[in-house]
Amino acid sequence: MAFLNENYLKLKAGYLFPEIGRRVKAFSEANPDAAKRIIRCGIGDVTEPLPEAVRAAMHRAVDEMGTHAGFHGYGPEQGYEWLRHAVAEHDFRARGIEVADDEVFISDGSKCDSGNMLDILGAQNRIAITDPVYPVYVDTNVMAGRTGEADASGAYAGLLYLRGSAENGFIPAPPSEHADVVYLCFPNNPTGAVATREQLTAWVDYARANRTLILFDAAYVEYISDPALPRSIYEIPGARECAIEFRSFSKNGGFTGTRCAYIVIPKTLMGTTASGEQKPLHPLWARRHTTKFNGVSYIVQRGAEALYSPEGKAQVAALIAHYMGNAWILREAAAALGWRVFGGVNAPYIWCSTPNGITSWEMFDRMLGEANVVITPGSGFGAAGEGWFRISAFNSRANAEEVARRITAIRW
Amino acid sequence: MAFLNENYLKLKAGYLFPEIGRRVKAFSEANPDAAKRIIRCGIGDVTEPLPEAVRAAMHRAVDEMGTHAGFHGYGPEQGYEWLRHAVAEHDFRARGIEVADDEVFISDGSKCDSGNMLDILGAQNRIAITDPVYPVYVDTNVMAGRTGEADASGAYAGLLYLRGSAENGFIPAPPSEHADVVYLCFPNNPTGAVATREQLTAWVDYARANRTLILFDAAYVEYISDPALPRSIYEIPGARECAIEFRSFSKNGGFTGTRCAYIVIPKTLMGTTASGEQKPLHPLWARRHTTKFNGVSYIVQRGAEALYSPEGKAQVAALIAHYMGNAWILREAAAALGWRVFGGVNAPYIWCSTPNGITSWEMFDRMLGEANVVITPGSGFGAAGEGWFRISAFNSRANAEEVARRITAIRW
Repeated sequence: MAFLNENYLKLKAGYLFPEIGRRVKAFSEANPDAAKRIIRCGIGDVTEPLPEAVRAAMHRAVDEMGTHAGFHGYGPEQGYEWLRHAVAEHDFRARGIEVADDEVFISDGSKCDSGNMLDILGAQNRIAITDPVYPVYVDTNVMAGRTGEADASGAYAGLLYLRGSAENGFIPAPPSEHADVVYLCFPNNPTGAVATREQLTAWVDYARANRTLILFDAAYVEYISDPALPRSIYEIPGARECAIEFRSFSKNGGFTGTRCAYIVIPKTLMGTTASGEQKPLHPLWARRHTTKFNGVSYIVQRGAEALYSPEGKAQVAALIAHYMGNAWILREAAAALGWRVFGGVNAPYIWCSTPNGITSWEMFDRMLGEANVVITPGSGFGAAGEGWFRISAFNSRANAEEVARRITAIRW
Repeated sequence: MAFLNENYLKLKAGYLFPEIGRRVKAFSEANPDAAKRIIRCGIGDVTEPLPEAVRAAMHRAVDEMGTHAGFHGYGPEQGYEWLRHAVAEHDFRARGIEVADDEVFISDGSKCDSGNMLDILGAQNRIAITDPVYPVYVDTNVMAGRTGEADASGAYAGLLYLRGSAENGFIPAPPSEHADVVYLCFPNNPTGAVATREQLTAWVDYARANRTLILFDAAYVEYISDPALPRSIYEIPGARECAIEFRSFSKNGGFTGTRCAYIVIPKTLMGTTASGEQKPLHPLWARRHTTKFNGVSYIVQRGAEALYSPEGKAQVAALIAHYMGNAWILREAAAALGWRVFGGVNAPYIWCSTPNGITSWEMFDRMLGEANVVITPGSGFGAAGEGWFRISAFNSRANAEEVARRITAIRW
């Protein structure tokens, strides 16, 4: 008998975004006219064309692949050296942050990286996760057998939830309890909160005192405009001894459908064996990456490299400015309605309290039914997200303005 | 303390191909003149340009991504419906084989798929693996904790090895013992052996009697020219109840550096819970794929789709004919030397016995040192591969002819 992994049976309902898709589809079938007016501010997917510099580089790469001299077969699984170098140089060393080229691993997405990271970590780790947060962290831990069953609120036994709230600005402080691994995501998905240098320093200090591994998801880092805010956890002294950083080209270069991302694993970062021996995690991930992955498409890597050219950087800056213009419009409209609002300043997400204490999914249904706008219910990001919802700024300017008009016109 | 996954520490030496790379690099540094003559028949990587139909489709897709109307963000994680449809229609239904569009899952590689498949299977499964075979099957089981330690021959405790030999044509029969999961790869990497309909039927019968899951790797299926040989395990009655099939565009479309593959999971395929309940595996894989993966690049999927156009099919046929012409040249040369030779007829690999009973790595070093040709030592594919080596036909015609000349000129 082929036995299945029964941990999958613990997962509650669908993954958040398929569930949103299901509700939108059902509404659209029942209301074909309203369906035509629907504006999607739900899933955090970019909408603007791929930058010209990226397209030009990909056209060149496709042409190269048509020649004997320029054909590329299997590449290095960790990514081409020129892309690892560009990443380390532009995203870190140019900012005074120590990262070596071979500490960068190119992948096809942060979702894959954050899920796959559990492969190299022991089953006995105590995992801490901020709440609300990107649901993939929790779901991949459930699938990997790192949790017990879920309770009525959707919280899984065995996980240490670090509760975000309006009171702590949705940036939980390190817990008094011990955790072996902690997920941090700043700028945060879904709340848009960004940790200050002091807050991140407290986390690095906690991690070093407890030998905790920080999995630091910085997929939205390019949306930080405040120069006082840290853009990488490696800006904090000691972070090279306790943190892995996840980055993506999805939200800056518009690569959600093109697929490229990377992680940084410092060679100074150690894990522990059951007997207490310290061993570096870098060779374990290198082994995983070379054995279970075959590298990102050469053509896509050439596209990603182009984001670091002067033209690419200018085009990314224009994309960020566009989306942050939307964020400002949406944030202003939400605030004018009297909702409590977080995010939308150094992040492309606006995080709002629901009116009159309705639930997140009730707000989802009202937004869909009355405004024909798809938002993301906060409870989909964890129990602490109940009573909140996320509006994404990834849209055209016209759509952002229309969403602002529609929500302003409704008597909540 | 962040505990690491100690199963990784059981892995012996490097993954085969990095070890080959290391030896070639060391030889090249010590012998810079000979290094210029090196011809690589080691790693099974294609060498010929990407088909014109693929490049044209990718150019169109890159242009689309530059427009608001044609931009594609997140796609369905399982692959676009048009590609899943093309796969099911052309590779299966057009041949009279039942496969529904939504039983096809598009991925970025068979290496990823075969490793990731362990995620949805329980830890208690007894795993059977043919020997010699593609090392990723064994290594990913070690990493996932499905084995004990390796012995001196490199065999891991807990795995059931099914020994291939010249006597059984490197096609092991089903064992007398019970196995929960078995890996089969035909056309085989590395031996080039292809199971007949009778041999595959014996496997399907075994699997159905034992409720065994067959993981059937058909990455080289397009190299089968003999119409009597099955091209899919689903040609065997009952296979939809016991098998998952892995396919790739790497070796037919030349996608080793472009990255696209797929698996088929029939909805009629069941796994077992510890308590004996039968549940379909399809929703488990769907959940894994949507939670831990974000789909293949839109541009790459459009390229893969073009392989099914009339032009694409003709261009693939020309590529296969080219590589099989090389295989014929290499096979003839090896046979003329008196080596025992398998493969090279319905597969792009030629599998040869080493002369005078030297070991596989000794043969690797002689081939590199004397002929300046990189081959793959058979022992890298498992203990049963000792005394054998693999020559890959993936090369230019001129290189294949030169390899044949060089090995013929040496006194073995």
